Amino acid sequence: MKETRISPRHPRAESLRIRERLVEHFNSGVVTVAGLLAQGRGEAFDYLLGEKTTPNALNAMKAATALLLAAKHPVISVNGNAAALAAKNIVRLAKQVNAKIEVNLFHRSLDREEAIEKLFKKAGATQILGVGEASSAAIPEIASDRRRVDPRGILIADVVLVPLEDGDRTEALVKMGKRVIAIDLNPLSRTAKFANVTIVDNIVRAVPSLIRIVEKLRTEDKKRLRKLVDEFDNARNLSEATEMIEKRLESLAQESQKGAHLTVLEEKDA
Amino acid sequence: MKETRISPRHPRAESLRIRERLVEHFNSGVVTVAGLLAQGRGEAFDYLLGEKTTPNALNAMKAATALLLAAKHPVISVNGNAAALAAKNIVRLAKQVNAKIEVNLFHRSLDREEAIEKLFKKAGATQILGVGEASSAAIPEIASDRRRVDPRGILIADVVLVPLEDGDRTEALVKMGKRVIAIDLNPLSRTAKFANVTIVDNIVRAVPSLIRIVEKLRTEDKKRLRKLVDEFDNARNLSEATEMIEKRLESLAQESQKGAHLTVLEEKDA
Repeated sequence: MKETRISPRHPRAESLRIRERLVEHFNSGVVTVAGLLAQGRGEAFDYLLGEKTTPNALNAMKAATALLLAAKHPVISVNGNAAALAAKNIVRLAKQVNAKIEVNLFHRSLDREEAIEKLFKKAGATQILGVGEASSAAIPEIASDRRRVDPRGILIADVVLVPLEDGDRTEALVKMGKRVIAIDLNPLSRTAKFANVTIVDNIVRAVPSLIRIVEKLRTEDKKRLRKLVDEFDNARNLSEATEMIEKRLESLAQESQKGAHLTVLEEKDA
Repeated sequence: MKETRISPRHPRAESLRIRERLVEHFNSGVVTVAGLLAQGRGEAFDYLLGEKTTPNALNAMKAATALLLAAKHPVISVNGNAAALAAKNIVRLAKQVNAKIEVNLFHRSLDREEAIEKLFKKAGATQILGVGEASSAAIPEIASDRRRVDPRGILIADVVLVPLEDGDRTEALVKMGKRVIAIDLNPLSRTAKFANVTIVDNIVRAVPSLIRIVEKLRTEDKKRLRKLVDEFDNARNLSEATEMIEKRLESLAQESQKGAHLTVLEEKDA
């Protein structure tokens, strides 16, 4: 593929820059074909959300922050796309809430794990769990490679942040009694439904927002944090997110009706 | 990526088989990274449509069929994804309506054009236009490589079927006075809006359906075909497709409310 210069005024400049970053990390072995397809699905949902962080997402982020700040063993579970899209900010967030970072892949290979580890170390991480033999424990009820976890990380975690996770694994983590925070652009996905707190937002925007919210809430006492968690209703929040998409579809449809181009075929016969 | 056997009972078996076909053709150079991202976006919209051909899509297919049957120089313009997903059926449809097949790529390279030509010839095509020096003409108002066209094909075409096209090119073809039929899963895309007839459906289902409808309508007289075209309102059809997605989102949201899993955080503190 040719390299392209993206004009900052291009209406989809940010989306195109993200795409270029993925292509680069696809070539370096961090991102897989399945990861590119997942990114495409995310692009579609992000388009439907209006490509911005909504009040609904901020609401989930407050509960997520409270969980992370109150956790004894918080872990951020990362895959190739998370590494490619948000390594630097994930490292910052992990330091801020004292979380470990663990690599956990659907399609495991030592090469990929090491490429991801390298990317995170370059982004400032001192330790990355889950690479190679370090994933010596297994969590039950998952058939894929994702059942392998690090005994210093996910195995003993009480709160796990899973950006871009699949439904089976989210379900398994919840069944093991972990509090799971997901970042998922599809409010209807199995991951979104199984997680305790689902942030319906693009990981590229969500992690920096989480960092800002952690900064604000870090001095709150345990009682207040507990209240933020207790008052959050994930099912209700997801149904609000779905309604938001519905409303946006409606307004996009109205806009396109106004700007309809040459759709009357008769005109073309003239 | 590991090769995986897909159980025919897997709920997403068809979608996974399509994905494997794309991966195979990605490795053979037919499909690009941009094509994989586009496929991911399509998957998201297809999920929202319920992964089936709707009455709305069939309505557009009737108008599309009438256009193809009445055309003097119909051309099917193909890219890497169209080749990977539907080569055999595109060849069948082209023979049925006496259309030429022309390769037209956003990211042109002789290697890719030849790989796509090879795929179509293997699928039974006798001639593929647009490969290499054959694209000696240019259509105005497009900046990308897609402006290059074959003087035996798109340049003189009156009706062009563009499965999986970008908005700029669709607009340019319409401005040149061609009748454009698009296949696009996103009813809000620029392609969908610019085309004269937009079939909101997955190319994998749409092309076989078109073949069946051509078989039914091929004996109709010109007047009846003309009526089918005249009575079709693309803007209205697209707004119906958008409403369909809205309604489906609503019902999916209701379903997920019923089946909500462990979303009340209090339960987990017990």
